[in-house]
This record gives sequence, structure tokens and C-alpha cells, in this order.
Amino acid sequence: MRLDDLNSGLEMLDREECLRLLATQEIGRLAFVIGGHPDVLPVNYTLDGDAIVIRTDSGRKLEGISRSTVAFEVDEIDRSRHAGWSVVVHGLAQEVTPYDRQEIVQRVADLPLHPWAGDKLHVVRLAPTSITGRRLRQS
Amino acid sequence: MRLDDLNSGLEMLDREECLRLLATQEIGRLAFVIGGHPDVLPVNYTLDGDAIVIRTDSGRKLEGISRSTVAFEVDEIDRSRHAGWSVVVHGLAQEVTPYDRQEIVQRVADLPLHPWAGDKLHVVRLAPTSITGRRLRQS
Repeated sequence: MRLDDLNSGLEMLDREECLRLLATQEIGRLAFVIGGHPDVLPVNYTLDGDAIVIRTDSGRKLEGISRSTVAFEVDEIDRSRHAGWSVVVHGLAQEVTPYDRQEIVQRVADLPLHPWAGDKLHVVRLAPTSITGRRLRQS
Repeated sequence: MRLDDLNSGLEMLDREECLRLLATQEIGRLAFVIGGHPDVLPVNYTLDGDAIVIRTDSGRKLEGISRSTVAFEVDEIDRSRHAGWSVVVHGLAQEVTPYDRQEIVQRVADLPLHPWAGDKLHVVRLAPTSITGRRLRQS
């Protein structure tokens, strides 16, 4: 373990470890800007390589994230031990449409991503510009 | 139970239920805008009436949230049952300083809010302009 901040007990995670952790979960929190203000909603997701893929309906969320930079956070936190990890992905969100590269359209269609509520007909892919993570060990 | 969207199985929660649920948790995800882009980080919190109170150090988070509108999300999700709830608070975040009303300074100082990592010397209070929540029942 590499402790980057001995005072805080926080360990910074490398990109490989972040991707490994992202693959263990299926719910994240998507932060976006709409009307100049931040918003955040939980979404279920899957990975396409290092990209985050989510489904959404044509509401506020889609409006806020299409062709915009977004932030996406996934964590696993143990309240009783005050320990856990958090990974944040920053990047550009783009709806996957039939006009995209056929390879992407097909790959995304094959992903095991099933909406928990509603139909959620739009598929959005978040291509990361940065992936950062932190782990907090029990002190 | 009032189902507001029979297709999606989502129940909209009233403000009272949202506040009750917020009081059951201690970790939320704070979304803010910094340099024009959204960001999101997990934070531990407590309630001061209907306001969210967090502690932070003087880094990126404090810079992004001081005197800004932010969004704060708390949830409890059961992956195996595809059920759970999510509450989102929108509002203005302001650091509590010794120059604030003495009543607030004292009340915030007395709150059971202990940082999990680092010293986190700054206390920020998020006064809600809206509190909304949704519950997803197992379908």
C-alpha cells in the first residue's frame, strides 16, 4: 500500500486499480451541469473498456449530459469501519446513435446493461479524460 | 404507496420522507461546478434541521462549493433486489465562519460530525432550495 497522505490515511489509486474497482459495482452517481447548476443522480452502468455506459430516458438527465463534460462517481463504503474507496471518472458524455461507428453501436448493444426502472431507450457513453481514485483505510 | 409512474415503478417521495431518509445515512455525494465543469465527491454529513452540514479541507472541494449552488445526493440501494431510494438536495453552500450568526456557529460546532480522514477544518452548510426523492420498488 502506498499512502500518499499519512495525515489523512488516504491512498491514491492508480488507473488500473480504479478500472478493476469500477468493474465490481453497477451503480454510480452521475454529476452534470444543467442551466448552469450542478445536478447528481444515481444510475446503473456497465463498462465498455474504460468507458462508462449508461441508459437513460429522454428527460432532464439526457439533456444535461449530451455532448457535455460530466463526472461519474462510484464507491463502496463501510460505515462501521470508516473505510472504503471512491473512484471518479471525468469525461465527455455522448449518446450512442445509429450514426456512430458500427463497431461501437454493436458493442454497446451487446453489453449487459438493463434498466432498473422504465424503458430508458437512450444509451450514453462516457469517454474518460481522467480516472482517479482514493481508498480510505481504517485508522 | 403512491406510484407516480407505473411504467417505471418509481415512487416520488415527499419532503418529510426525504428528511427522514437523509437522517438515516451519513455519506452522500456532493456535486459542484469547478472551472465550468461538474465534479462529484463522497462526503460524510449530518443534518442541521433541513440543512446538510459537511466538513472539508481547504482544497478543490471547498473552492468549488463556497457560495455556490450544489447538489447533494444520498441513497440506499439493494443491488440484489433492484430496489432502493435516492434523495437529492439542491441549494446554496456556504462556509460557516465565526462571523456567522452565533446561534448557527454554536449549533454547527455541537453537531456530531467527525471527519473520517484528515482534519477538515472548514464547515460548510448547504441550505436547501429543493429536496426531492424517489423510491424504486422491486418489480
